[in-house]
Amino acid sequence: MQRHFEKELDSLKTNLIKMCSIVEDAIGSAIKAVLDGDKELAQRVISGDQRVNSLELEIDNAIIDLLALQQPVAVDLRFILAAQKINNDLERIGDHAVNIAESALMLIKTPIQEPLLEIPKMAEIAQTMLRNAIEGFICSDPQLGKTVLAQDDIIDELNKKMVGDVIQLMKTEKNLIDGGLELIRVSRNLERVADLATNIAEDVIFIAQARVVKHHAEEKDSSPKESSFPDR
Amino acid sequence: MQRHFEKELDSLKTNLIKMCSIVEDAIGSAIKAVLDGDKELAQRVISGDQRVNSLELEIDNAIIDLLALQQPVAVDLRFILAAQKINNDLERIGDHAVNIAESALMLIKTPIQEPLLEIPKMAEIAQTMLRNAIEGFICSDPQLGKTVLAQDDIIDELNKKMVGDVIQLMKTEKNLIDGGLELIRVSRNLERVADLATNIAEDVIFIAQARVVKHHAEEKDSSPKESSFPDR
Repeated sequence: MQRHFEKELDSLKTNLIKMCSIVEDAIGSAIKAVLDGDKELAQRVISGDQRVNSLELEIDNAIIDLLALQQPVAVDLRFILAAQKINNDLERIGDHAVNIAESALMLIKTPIQEPLLEIPKMAEIAQTMLRNAIEGFICSDPQLGKTVLAQDDIIDELNKKMVGDVIQLMKTEKNLIDGGLELIRVSRNLERVADLATNIAEDVIFIAQARVVKHHAEEKDSSPKESSFPDR
Repeated sequence: MQRHFEKELDSLKTNLIKMCSIVEDAIGSAIKAVLDGDKELAQRVISGDQRVNSLELEIDNAIIDLLALQQPVAVDLRFILAAQKINNDLERIGDHAVNIAESALMLIKTPIQEPLLEIPKMAEIAQTMLRNAIEGFICSDPQLGKTVLAQDDIIDELNKKMVGDVIQLMKTEKNLIDGGLELIRVSRNLERVADLATNIAEDVIFIAQARVVKHHAEEKDSSPKESSFPDR
């Protein structure tokens, strides 16, 4: 029974790592599609989401079976519950990759003059956060998780600046409104990817330390925000 | 042991119902704040989110204890796993209420001429969906869950129309750009609330029928979407 359990647990971990890698690729490709105006790549990201969705269901079912048949306790239970959340967060990151790829397609049709403002920097940070969160999960390294948490505020600031800059652009030239809205959408989706990477990092720390670090942002600052689009 | 378990399960259910009711109120108040330009109400929604976050953690911890100490199986296990997801979805709905309330504050400062377009209708449908999803959960009624699933496409269409209309407005008058962006934000957040209500409805059906109806939309249509902002 015990050996069977360990085998199931290993298979769950392998599938989650596969899901991580697919989703990380999807985000990377979606961003590349925006930066290079690559239509085919964007379409590949969009059609690839089906695979992420099936894998999410497969992992979810494996988790239910594990809990029902093996009744794990302590550290294994903690791992499995965190795995369920991480699985869900990865699927949502996949959705954001699709959103970004859809914006890439729109931006090809509606180019804007000053092309990408904060986007390359935001993309780089969001991808680093995602990579560290995933690596932290794979290597059970809570330290990596903590570096992710530290970066979330930077992305929020960049998103705020980005939205402000794009609004200025849209006000100077109404032909930039369509493209500007897509840039805001890309920015917002990158900010959400960073949030989800933060969720995963929190779960990595939870697995390691059984300490809930969620809602850390609220503890730091619960005052209402002034600027537009710092979406949750 | 069995009686203790049932008591714990009841207490979990009671807390989830409390969470439902707080979050439903928050969405209702946030929408009212937008429609009436009510600053105080908007601020109340924003500061009330702390309570939603604490309750989410409390429920999450109760779920971990239940799984670890009671090792439930079959229908109880299914209920508890769905409860974990519903808890997370409710917390996210709370976040969307905050986003809408923040937009209410911005809209007071930057009124737009043609005030709310599709917003009242979207708000009404999103609230009905949320109410039915929650009621379906409380009464274990999968039929109510199914009515929610049927409405999700309507909200998506309204959101698409709303974004298109607002873009037209912004193009005719650049003074409407700031307000227009807030309206798009409200619209998008309502669309996300409807998505989360759909998630909850799917979980209600899952509890009742152990049938996964997730990703039903992908089965119906997996082609890339043309228009902007049908965000996932």
